[in-house]
Amino acid sequence: MRRIEVGAGGGAPPYTVTVGPGLLDTLEVPQRHVALIHPEDLPPEFVARVQARLRPVVTVAVPARDDCKTLAVMAGVLSRLAAAAIPRDGAVVGLGGGAATDLAGFVAASYLRGVAFYTLPTTLLGMVDAAVGGKTGVNLPEGKNLVGAFWPPRAVWCDTGTLATLPPAVFREGAAEAFKHGLMSDPSLLPRVLDPEFRPGGALLEGTLADAVAVKAGVVTRDLTEQGERAFLNFGHTLAHALEAVTDHAVSHGEAVAYGMHYAARLSRAQGGADLSAHTLAFLRWQRPTPLPALTYDAVAPYMARDKKADAQGVRFVLLRDLGQPYLARVTEDVLREEFTGWLEDVRRTQGGHGA
Amino acid sequence: MRRIEVGAGGGAPPYTVTVGPGLLDTLEVPQRHVALIHPEDLPPEFVARVQARLRPVVTVAVPARDDCKTLAVMAGVLSRLAAAAIPRDGAVVGLGGGAATDLAGFVAASYLRGVAFYTLPTTLLGMVDAAVGGKTGVNLPEGKNLVGAFWPPRAVWCDTGTLATLPPAVFREGAAEAFKHGLMSDPSLLPRVLDPEFRPGGALLEGTLADAVAVKAGVVTRDLTEQGERAFLNFGHTLAHALEAVTDHAVSHGEAVAYGMHYAARLSRAQGGADLSAHTLAFLRWQRPTPLPALTYDAVAPYMARDKKADAQGVRFVLLRDLGQPYLARVTEDVLREEFTGWLEDVRRTQGGHGA
Repeated sequence: MRRIEVGAGGGAPPYTVTVGPGLLDTLEVPQRHVALIHPEDLPPEFVARVQARLRPVVTVAVPARDDCKTLAVMAGVLSRLAAAAIPRDGAVVGLGGGAATDLAGFVAASYLRGVAFYTLPTTLLGMVDAAVGGKTGVNLPEGKNLVGAFWPPRAVWCDTGTLATLPPAVFREGAAEAFKHGLMSDPSLLPRVLDPEFRPGGALLEGTLADAVAVKAGVVTRDLTEQGERAFLNFGHTLAHALEAVTDHAVSHGEAVAYGMHYAARLSRAQGGADLSAHTLAFLRWQRPTPLPALTYDAVAPYMARDKKADAQGVRFVLLRDLGQPYLARVTEDVLREEFTGWLEDVRRTQGGHGA
Repeated sequence: MRRIEVGAGGGAPPYTVTVGPGLLDTLEVPQRHVALIHPEDLPPEFVARVQARLRPVVTVAVPARDDCKTLAVMAGVLSRLAAAAIPRDGAVVGLGGGAATDLAGFVAASYLRGVAFYTLPTTLLGMVDAAVGGKTGVNLPEGKNLVGAFWPPRAVWCDTGTLATLPPAVFREGAAEAFKHGLMSDPSLLPRVLDPEFRPGGALLEGTLADAVAVKAGVVTRDLTEQGERAFLNFGHTLAHALEAVTDHAVSHGEAVAYGMHYAARLSRAQGGADLSAHTLAFLRWQRPTPLPALTYDAVAPYMARDKKADAQGVRFVLLRDLGQPYLARVTEDVLREEFTGWLEDVRRTQGGHGA
C-alpha cells in the first residue's frame, strides 16, 4: 500500500491518496450522513462493499460515463441529497470512473455551498488523473468541463482491485495519463507503463500507479488553480480535445491523449527540442487505440483553437525541451500544418503494423 | 460616497463596497470580456447605462425575482457565456436584486471553474445583504439556497440612485436587514432606519446604508464561511424562512425577517435577555408588512426544524442578550410554542393599529 500527500490550497488541509488492493473494505469517514454517488453500470459488488462500510443515508446511481456530466443530472442528484436531508456536516462520496467522480465532486462543492468530499476511483484514468487535484465539474452542450469548481477531496482511495473488472482497452486508455506523467516529469515511468507487469494484478501495478499519481500530486500541490505549472498536465491535450470533438467521442479521452502526445512530441522536436517521438510511438503501439477516421488538418484545426485552455491571447501548446522539461509555447500555423501531416503518417504506420 | 472594505477569505484579495449616487455611470473593470446578467423586469435604462460603461460581450436577461434562481435557468445562462466564448480572464457582472446577483455569482463561481465577479445591487435588500459576503447560489424544489458557492465579488457598487424606482414597499422590505444589523451590532442604526429621511433621495440614506453594510462587512471579514459569528446574521431568520415557506412566499423575505425578528426578540427575553421587543414592534409598524394568514404553531414548527441552518444536532436560534450581544442557543419546545402565541397577538395588534 502506498500513500501520497496532496496539498489542497486555499487554506484547506492536505489530503492523502491511498493506493492498494482491497481498500473498499477498509474505508472510514468521520461524517455520519453520507451520500454515495456511482454510475449505474458499476459492478453492484463495489457499491455493496462501500455501503457496508459507510452506511450511506442515500445512494444515487447516475448514467454511465459522460452521460452523467450534465447540469440536469446534477439537479436530480442534488434534490436526492436535499430530500434525504444530508446536513452541512455530511459528506458526498464519489465511486466510479472519472466522469462520476467529477460530477460527485461538483455536487459536493455546491450542495449547501460545500460539504466534505471523498473519491473512490475505479478506473486507471480516474486514479491517475481525475481523482487528484480538486477539479470537479460537468459539461455544457457547448463543450466539456465548462462548468465546475475547484473542490479538493478529503481523501482518495485507489483500490487497485477494482481495475481487474475493466476491459483491457479501458485500462490501456488510462495508461496514457500515467505515460504523460513520465514524459513531463518522471522518465522512470515510461518503461514501467509499457511493461507486461503493469496490468491489473501485475507486479508493477501499485508502484507505477502510485508514482504516476505522485507526479500529479506534486504539480497540483504547487499550483492548485492552474496559474502556472499545472498547465503542463495538458501535454498532448490540445489535439486530444480536438480529436474527441471531431470523432464525437468515438475516440476515448485516453486514446485521444495518446494520439495528442505524439503530435506534441513532433511539435516539440520541430521547435528545437529533443526527439521524443520514439517514446510516444511506442506508447501508441502498446495502447492500440481506436483507429482514427479520415482527418484533415483543416477539419481539426478549428477545434484546437477552441480548446478551453485558450485565453484571450490565443491557443497555447505544452511542449517538451526534453524528458521532464515541459514549457508553454505558441506554434505557428505552418508548423502545426506540416507536423499534422507527419503525425498522421506516423499514426497510420503504427496501425498498419509497420512501425519501427 | 462611502467605501467599505470587505475581507474575502481563502487567500482572495479584499474587495470594496462603494455606496453612493450615480455609480452606474462611473464603473470600470479591468477585464475585456464581460457577461452582464440582469432580471428581465429591470428598468432598461439601468442596463443601458451599464452597457455603455462595460461594453459586455453578452447580456443575459433572466426571469424576475426568485424565478431566476433555478439550475435550469443557470444552465441557460452558462450556455450563453460559452457560446459568447467568455474566456477565463473574463468577468460576470450581476445587476439587479438579490436573486439575480445570487444567480450571477454562482454562474461566475462555476463557469470555467470560476471567473471574476462584480455586483451592482439595485434593491436595498441586495445592497445590505446579498451583495456582501460571497454567498451565491440557487434554489432546489426542496428548498431555498440549497445549492451554491462562496464566491466573493471583486467589487460591489451600490448606486443609491437605483433605489428611487422601487415601490416603497420593496424599500421597506430591504430595511429589515439594516434594522437587524442595528439590533445585533450597531444600535445607532435603529433610529436612523425608522427616520423619514431614510428613503430614496433622503438625507440619511447613504450614511445609514453604508453603516448597515459595514456591519455585515465586518462579520463576514472575520468569518467568511459561517464557522462562528456569521451565524448571528441569521437573527430573525429561523421563523422568517418558515413564514416564507408556509405562505408560499406571499410574504417577502424582508417582511418575513421583520416578523421573525420580533419572535426572536420575544424568545431572547424569555431566555433571560433584555426586552428588545419594543424595537422589533416599532419596526413592524414602520414596515407595514403583508398581513399573515391564519397560522398555528403546529403548522409553522416543522418548517423551523427544516431550516437549513439545522445541523446534525438540531435547530439553533440566534438570540440577543441585549442590543449588540447576539448568541446561539437551543430553545425548548414549550417556550417556542408559548412565545409563538404571544408573538401572533403582538403582530395582530400592530396590524390592527392598536400597537403601543
